[in-house]
Amino acid sequence: MRVAYQGEPGAFSEYAALKLLGDNILTVPKPSFEEVYDALESGEVDKAVVPIENSLFGSVHVNYDLLRKHPFRIIGELKLRVVHNLMALPGVKSEDICYVYSHWQALGQCQDFLRTKLPKAQYIDAYDTAGAAKVLAEHGYPQPHRSAVIASVRAAEYYGLEILAKRIESDHQNYTRFLVLQPESASIPLWDTTEPRKTSVVFAHKEDLAGALFKSLAVFALRDIDLLKIESRPLVGSPWVYLFYLDIQGRESDEAVQKALDHLSELTAYLKVLGSYPVGETIE
Amino acid sequence: MRVAYQGEPGAFSEYAALKLLGDNILTVPKPSFEEVYDALESGEVDKAVVPIENSLFGSVHVNYDLLRKHPFRIIGELKLRVVHNLMALPGVKSEDICYVYSHWQALGQCQDFLRTKLPKAQYIDAYDTAGAAKVLAEHGYPQPHRSAVIASVRAAEYYGLEILAKRIESDHQNYTRFLVLQPESASIPLWDTTEPRKTSVVFAHKEDLAGALFKSLAVFALRDIDLLKIESRPLVGSPWVYLFYLDIQGRESDEAVQKALDHLSELTAYLKVLGSYPVGETIE
Repeated sequence: MRVAYQGEPGAFSEYAALKLLGDNILTVPKPSFEEVYDALESGEVDKAVVPIENSLFGSVHVNYDLLRKHPFRIIGELKLRVVHNLMALPGVKSEDICYVYSHWQALGQCQDFLRTKLPKAQYIDAYDTAGAAKVLAEHGYPQPHRSAVIASVRAAEYYGLEILAKRIESDHQNYTRFLVLQPESASIPLWDTTEPRKTSVVFAHKEDLAGALFKSLAVFALRDIDLLKIESRPLVGSPWVYLFYLDIQGRESDEAVQKALDHLSELTAYLKVLGSYPVGETIE
Repeated sequence: MRVAYQGEPGAFSEYAALKLLGDNILTVPKPSFEEVYDALESGEVDKAVVPIENSLFGSVHVNYDLLRKHPFRIIGELKLRVVHNLMALPGVKSEDICYVYSHWQALGQCQDFLRTKLPKAQYIDAYDTAGAAKVLAEHGYPQPHRSAVIASVRAAEYYGLEILAKRIESDHQNYTRFLVLQPESASIPLWDTTEPRKTSVVFAHKEDLAGALFKSLAVFALRDIDLLKIESRPLVGSPWVYLFYLDIQGRESDEAVQKALDHLSELTAYLKVLGSYPVGETIE
């Protein structure tokens, strides 16, 4: 099984793919999310794993937009604890470090550590945490023996870097939720027949429907179906009109969910079920 | 009156500030949104103008997060049509252009034009549209006579650049909505006594309140108060728990709105009114 993800080998998304789909898969790195979706649509890969939400930074909105535009189904999810580590070329010591490279979110999450332990270093934005580890390992930064990167333990192992400090993030309640996607036409795996499930939908209201959002949430509330998440995104071409993405509790085939979705379709100009899948476990 | 905005002189935010508060204000540029909020909190400026939402890209989430953390009130809004233009140093012609610099969103919005008219140029990400114009005007890019930037007409005028092509964005339904902020303690201007108003609030539910979001929207729907926008953001420190930002129709002092907010406070662990202000006009 070939599985696309965004980033470089050693990225959190690759780890999520291995945890979700097993160690026997072949992971296929792609530089951008668009290329991940294109690879799945063209059949170059069988599945894709993408981050959809981080507990500190919020939703990965580009993935909401791309999900809606492609004929894919969500078939699973996983919550992964994000742990950051300072690493450098073998032999380099903390006191040598003048430059720290990482994704701006990782630099931000570790700023208490950086300000205390490396107050004089320069912090430089990189496109990716594992990507920064790769560039450093290949001596691609100007002063490699005066540089460090912030990335995962797996990235350190993969690129042969030495960890100088572990778990350097300030807020340990840092989790990213990942989704597994596959083409709509592929068969749904049977791994999940007994577990609790959630169902994800996206919709746009009929024009000028008064109290539209309240009414669409009512189709679930009146049937005691719990709402787990709501996300709004702009409807491109119609300023100040929104698409809504909902995660609800229950499986698409449940009678109550089925009736609620029928009811919702009365209120909407557009409705798409993105998937119905087991509620993901959390990996610490 | 001193008014802070993020970006360089010639930025869309500066233009929004002038349109909202008049030509007599003193605009104060700041490199980051955080510094805009700090300048308002310290009293260095009297007001701030920040983008909150774009009709193609969605909400500017950092401003939702910052709004909640500062003791400010929203006192006005404005919707501004975003128009992009290709510009270069005086005398440089389209056929000379090998490099195009701009904010990645602007490059994305103009990609049809770029691919057709400048297919061989390199497109390079800059931190800001007006900032790119400034750097080019100061010959700060490697090959200034082979470079162009994408920015506003105002940026071209401000930095003495020549416009090579006007209105080069693909989707003309491109608007950004800006907010005016001032300290909570400052008096509310009287400019808006008769116009229709909206009210913005942010809240977090009480723990384990079943059907919490539906119930909070019901306090408005049951009083025929229209919901204009909903935005969810993560509650940092509590993974998969959300803060909700609502814009509703009506003014805070309306009896129905007042009663709805009282009702909402019964359901919430945290509730803050961010402001009640005239519905902004759209500037084409």
